Amino acid sequence: MVNYPSGSVATQTKKVVKRSKMVTFGKRGMNFEAEINATNDYYLTHGIAVVHKKPTPIQIVKVDYPKRSRAKITEAYFRQASTTDYSGVYQGHYLDFEAKETQNKTSFPLKNFHEHQINHMSNVLSQNGLAFVLLHFSALARTFLLKASDLIPFYQKNDGQKSISLAFIEKQGYEISTNKLPSIPYIDSIQKILGGESHFKATQN
Amino acid sequence: MVNYPSGSVATQTKKVVKRSKMVTFGKRGMNFEAEINATNDYYLTHGIAVVHKKPTPIQIVKVDYPKRSRAKITEAYFRQASTTDYSGVYQGHYLDFEAKETQNKTSFPLKNFHEHQINHMSNVLSQNGLAFVLLHFSALARTFLLKASDLIPFYQKNDGQKSISLAFIEKQGYEISTNKLPSIPYIDSIQKILGGESHFKATQN
Repeated sequence: MVNYPSGSVATQTKKVVKRSKMVTFGKRGMNFEAEINATNDYYLTHGIAVVHKKPTPIQIVKVDYPKRSRAKITEAYFRQASTTDYSGVYQGHYLDFEAKETQNKTSFPLKNFHEHQINHMSNVLSQNGLAFVLLHFSALARTFLLKASDLIPFYQKNDGQKSISLAFIEKQGYEISTNKLPSIPYIDSIQKILGGESHFKATQN
Repeated sequence: MVNYPSGSVATQTKKVVKRSKMVTFGKRGMNFEAEINATNDYYLTHGIAVVHKKPTPIQIVKVDYPKRSRAKITEAYFRQASTTDYSGVYQGHYLDFEAKETQNKTSFPLKNFHEHQINHMSNVLSQNGLAFVLLHFSALARTFLLKASDLIPFYQKNDGQKSISLAFIEKQGYEISTNKLPSIPYIDSIQKILGGESHFKATQN
């Protein structure tokens, strides 16, 4: 329809976190992102991890500079991001991820991921960073962490045409229990991954 | 004068990298940032590190959705960033930095750093991330990397009122030779820092 990244305006202008909607956040398009942001706030204030959502990239065309007033952007457009939405650090490890949701019940459409995001995650992996995606099945109220190292070969083989089956995600991914605080505790899954990969354990305290 | 982050519009709309100006980039306000971006491009394409500048945060107020055309932002304002400008990954290590320049010849004004940036770098350090600043003395054509662990105590002691002497920066920082390609090879300094800190060496190849 329009070239407008989902949820961007609202999260740029204000933080919308409704605690009462936590369990049912899948029913509204923006809440998955809002819950991730709330989770990151929780991680930050509790000293668990430092993860931020990057600002939406905007192409600025015209700016007015009124006297005695702040600069006003009068013409600008949304740009496609060249990286993923989230990055940060957990116990020295670089984290980099994208969060997506679907209404589908049996598979996750690959068209949700752009080629430049796949390339970025591939670059991050080659620098030994921890790249992954958070996948939310809103109709099922189930959320998974899937490592980019599992996503990328699948994406490349299927060339963005198809989707990843829920069965594959259940087998390869890490299901995130979303009924506690913080609401998307993805660091729990990261701890499992780090525990199983010796080259990531090296710098852990 | 106006509330307008230096260099943001130009770097949002197009990449301005003039190779012929490389040695003299300190003479123009925007070139230090452009040279860092060019350095990051070099690091990315050569598989050395994955570091990106975050988009400028924009507060969007009004968006038009014309038929058969992409969404047009018609009212928006620059926001103050809550983190640093650059983040990325180098051999598994999380990198996080801010780049600033001054016309001064003997000291670097602390007012260049906002409290929320200092807080962010402090949070990154507590997660064992590598936080630092790149300081460019344009009149001297000298550039330094200073670890956040050296900057933060200085900032807190002086409460943002004063400045850091060049002598302190020369002693505690890492001077970056800027006359080769890439033009701001700050990863060289990072390698020196990692070489001297055993807990960072663990994951290096």
